[in-house]
Amino acid sequence: MGCRRNINQTVSLGLKNLKSKHEKIIDMVEKFIVTPWEVRGQIDYEKLVKEFGTKHINQKLLERIKKHTGELHPFLRRGIFFSHRDLDWILNEYEKGNKFFLYTGRAPSGPVHIGHLIPWIFTKWLQEKFDVELWFQFPDEEKTFFKENLTLEDTKKFTYENALDVIALGFDPKNTHFLIDTVNAKTMYKEAVKVAKKITFSTTKAVFGFSNDTNIGAIFYTAMQTVPAFLPSVMKGKNIPCLIPYAIDQDAHFRISRDVLPKLGYYKPAAIHCIFLPGLGGIVEQGKMSSSEEETTIYTTDDPETVKRKIVKYAFSGGAATIEEHRKKGGNPDVDVSYQWLTFFEDDDKKLKKIHDDYISGKLLTGELKQILIYKLNSFLKEHQKKREKAKDHYDKFIFKD
Amino acid sequence: MGCRRNINQTVSLGLKNLKSKHEKIIDMVEKFIVTPWEVRGQIDYEKLVKEFGTKHINQKLLERIKKHTGELHPFLRRGIFFSHRDLDWILNEYEKGNKFFLYTGRAPSGPVHIGHLIPWIFTKWLQEKFDVELWFQFPDEEKTFFKENLTLEDTKKFTYENALDVIALGFDPKNTHFLIDTVNAKTMYKEAVKVAKKITFSTTKAVFGFSNDTNIGAIFYTAMQTVPAFLPSVMKGKNIPCLIPYAIDQDAHFRISRDVLPKLGYYKPAAIHCIFLPGLGGIVEQGKMSSSEEETTIYTTDDPETVKRKIVKYAFSGGAATIEEHRKKGGNPDVDVSYQWLTFFEDDDKKLKKIHDDYISGKLLTGELKQILIYKLNSFLKEHQKKREKAKDHYDKFIFKD
Repeated sequence: MGCRRNINQTVSLGLKNLKSKHEKIIDMVEKFIVTPWEVRGQIDYEKLVKEFGTKHINQKLLERIKKHTGELHPFLRRGIFFSHRDLDWILNEYEKGNKFFLYTGRAPSGPVHIGHLIPWIFTKWLQEKFDVELWFQFPDEEKTFFKENLTLEDTKKFTYENALDVIALGFDPKNTHFLIDTVNAKTMYKEAVKVAKKITFSTTKAVFGFSNDTNIGAIFYTAMQTVPAFLPSVMKGKNIPCLIPYAIDQDAHFRISRDVLPKLGYYKPAAIHCIFLPGLGGIVEQGKMSSSEEETTIYTTDDPETVKRKIVKYAFSGGAATIEEHRKKGGNPDVDVSYQWLTFFEDDDKKLKKIHDDYISGKLLTGELKQILIYKLNSFLKEHQKKREKAKDHYDKFIFKD
Repeated sequence: MGCRRNINQTVSLGLKNLKSKHEKIIDMVEKFIVTPWEVRGQIDYEKLVKEFGTKHINQKLLERIKKHTGELHPFLRRGIFFSHRDLDWILNEYEKGNKFFLYTGRAPSGPVHIGHLIPWIFTKWLQEKFDVELWFQFPDEEKTFFKENLTLEDTKKFTYENALDVIALGFDPKNTHFLIDTVNAKTMYKEAVKVAKKITFSTTKAVFGFSNDTNIGAIFYTAMQTVPAFLPSVMKGKNIPCLIPYAIDQDAHFRISRDVLPKLGYYKPAAIHCIFLPGLGGIVEQGKMSSSEEETTIYTTDDPETVKRKIVKYAFSGGAATIEEHRKKGGNPDVDVSYQWLTFFEDDDKKLKKIHDDYISGKLLTGELKQILIYKLNSFLKEHQKKREKAKDHYDKFIFKD
């Protein structure tokens, strides 16, 4: 098989796997959609890099990061964080002693699933390695503009629940500030006003595909999403570089931020982008895990039996049709969701390589591979759920007091 | 002259005067513009009532008001407040013991002129006579969306200065709450979000004439202007009728409010509308006094000499070309700005009637009429400026604390 390559040959395993699958299912390629509100089809990340005008994270940049962090996070080694804007500039400034701050967020509209955790786990690592501030936005109004029946009462509840997941990942409370749009509106709205003045309806039509039928809240909202990218600069009265780690679907908002902020006298925010954790249904069916598809999504609060049941029943398999055939021809880790998920959750490269090689050789059966994933995820979630419970005592100290 | 009628023959003097002028200058008639951001040309209030779908305040309604207030404010007797929506319903509810609250406001973008005071003076009278709460909005972001060089720093300064004028009119601090959009955003933004969800870009195009080039702040803003019309109902957890006194140019916003609020479970706000105080340049040239035309505008902080100079020099005269001709043919109070202004500022009907009749007969010269106005205005402003100075000590207690 052309795709049977050594795991050590590439630093962008996740990305390349998705590409190899892409080659096989040509008819899906043209149909993928990546917007802040919808991700569908098999995503061609190469094409996104070109269309969005971002840059790949190359070996040279990885080495520069390593110089400061001592080691590379598996998400960097494996190309899960694969693209950026101005990351080299962020490092230039950092090396001159001009520290950046981090900004990421979560639009609360449902429970958190393990796919949501990917950019946050990485953000936590960046915070720790660079010792920098994080501003974490919970735009609790955003999704109410796009979902008829979702109210601010609903998103208030989800904000709290989702924040527990964020806190559970171990962010430093002294260096981390949660901004909740309706709670911190006194601070945020007046900054959003300055941003909104610089954005026409035409721009939102072009960037988000809005039409005359779009509600005026949805149209305005992007201004609120730009605020945390310069709010620390406003508060400290000096221009501070901003680095935003996010899944690539949020890029539209930050293209606008990069266009507007220099007009207000602030730096363009830099960005570092990750791919999506696919849903259990597979890379083609589910380009991105989705909270609304309960059975093919693992929530952070799922119990061990639920995790087991979902994976056993739904995880798309790259194995052969029968055990005999599998032993003879081997499995295909590139499309096997259990293996793909392990590239996100198994930090040990050696272990991952053995799983990869054993699966290809046919030594490891699909059922066994699923058991490895179930054990890995349940171990992770057991710890996460403990920390999530403890987070309830710390919620308040993370909220920005304006 | 057909327009020489007795002042006692009509309760809507201001309105009718403007109409009679209208008859003479046909070519201006079709060109008048009345929007929240622009008022131009000679305004045909009859046409506005039809186009906006409001109702005239008729004799029956005046009598119903008088039953509660004991007397009619000159602005009601003279038709300066001439139009309404659901004022009869407000009185029905009031008579059932269901008190309304008042809502009006001021978008700070410059100093206050005497034209701005008209709806506020009347609002103060309503507050006193009905003993009701007033919510007064200072949307300090609004005008920044429409004026390239106007910043939030500018409007912050104007908010304070303008608020002094409002306080100077004698509002009851216990029953009056100032809402400043950026200051009270914590309270207001989340309510605006609920409103914004119910308004499409199409609606703002139709109502305000917005286009693709309009900035997204301007598009969203109308949601903020709707908030005070139901905020007291939100805070008290029960539906409270709202009455909004305003100059008719703001009607576009409140047509939207009336459309949206029932969808959120609140009453449609009722309204009572006044005509504009014309600029010194006259009814035709200046349908509405404008802060940006300094020489034909009287600011509340103008000193007596400035008031005198502006009126002597710029007040459009309805007098004849020479004293001899004036003595013979008389003047025309319908187009004379000094006389028109006295219909706003001279409360005594008998005195006003005498001025009116003496001017028509030629007994009163334009110069003498101007002196009457100068004395009247300077007396008013002397008192106002004293109270405005004292207002500085009371500003803080009017600001809503959220």
